[in-house]
Amino acid sequence: MTAAAHADLWPDVRPDAARRLMLSGLRSFAERGFHATTTRDIATGAGMSPAALYVYFPSKVGLLFAISHSGHEHTLAMVTAAIAKGADPVAGMRHLVADFVAWHAEWHTVARVVQYELHALPEREFAVVAELRHRIERQFRDLIADGVAAGVFDVPDVRTAARAVLSLGIDVARWYGPTTRTTPAELGAQYTDLALRMLGAS
Amino acid sequence: MTAAAHADLWPDVRPDAARRLMLSGLRSFAERGFHATTTRDIATGAGMSPAALYVYFPSKVGLLFAISHSGHEHTLAMVTAAIAKGADPVAGMRHLVADFVAWHAEWHTVARVVQYELHALPEREFAVVAELRHRIERQFRDLIADGVAAGVFDVPDVRTAARAVLSLGIDVARWYGPTTRTTPAELGAQYTDLALRMLGAS
Repeated sequence: MTAAAHADLWPDVRPDAARRLMLSGLRSFAERGFHATTTRDIATGAGMSPAALYVYFPSKVGLLFAISHSGHEHTLAMVTAAIAKGADPVAGMRHLVADFVAWHAEWHTVARVVQYELHALPEREFAVVAELRHRIERQFRDLIADGVAAGVFDVPDVRTAARAVLSLGIDVARWYGPTTRTTPAELGAQYTDLALRMLGAS
Repeated sequence: MTAAAHADLWPDVRPDAARRLMLSGLRSFAERGFHATTTRDIATGAGMSPAALYVYFPSKVGLLFAISHSGHEHTLAMVTAAIAKGADPVAGMRHLVADFVAWHAEWHTVARVVQYELHALPEREFAVVAELRHRIERQFRDLIADGVAAGVFDVPDVRTAARAVLSLGIDVARWYGPTTRTTPAELGAQYTDLALRMLGAS
């Protein structure tokens, strides 16, 4: 992620110190993983004293939860908005896959932390994020089911098809990097066609 | 992963103490991540003294490399064998996706460590594994290219199509778990049909 891209993350988080701690935590978790990162690493990365983290977050896990929660809330809002842009299930799926894939390419560092450190969250925080994940997945399933009902999609199993479309997007965060030549938007367009084929779109 | 499944891993690794250390390392890396795992954790998990690890492996990273290297070698062999089972590109792709997806469901713990701790490997070890990954990816690309040349697949971009098929399989390791009702073989069959649709198989 470039410095410019970093600057766009969490523009609404106030005060700025909290936002800087979230950015520093994101970098550390992405580099070393949650468990191997200390609160000192995070504070130092944000140019602050070790104790300062506790002014803004209850704990290291509280900071991970803030990153994960905002990442999932953002994804849910993006998914909802993308589907609403389409007048029918095929158009909705075009917008959904294009935006979902491009987001996972553009923000692969955030997406990796959000996806791969999920199980570091304690039970209560995990449940909050799991509920958001269910709502995201349901949007994919409902759109596919609507398309099947309208006769424009044809899949043997809606749940499996939804998982496959989600995987196409989420796995982009694993392999996409600064040396990838395909832009996020190009990849979004290519994957849109592949996803519509999977769904037997007519 | 069940104890029975664990027992099947690395049957050829000798002596048995080395195999037990690999199994214990796998469990610890999957649970806490590579960086947060100590050599003491691994040795204790294998019922051995902390110093014993160094009899069999040069370091903690040497153990991760053994797990990652054997995982990738196994995958390359599986992929090669699966393609060879098919008399033509469509049949080859059927076997490839079915086996690749089922493997990532069955061995999701191994696959997660192999995929998500890849960047913990030092440069030289990473290069060895990266070469195996390139060979695995090339098998997918070559098979798709063969199918396009034979007029049985129809894709706008072979590299993107190969990445998408790989993602369908690899991402299974992220979400598949002990409570998933679909069996690895069932999932393999469902994803085979979805992958062939993506490839415009005739």
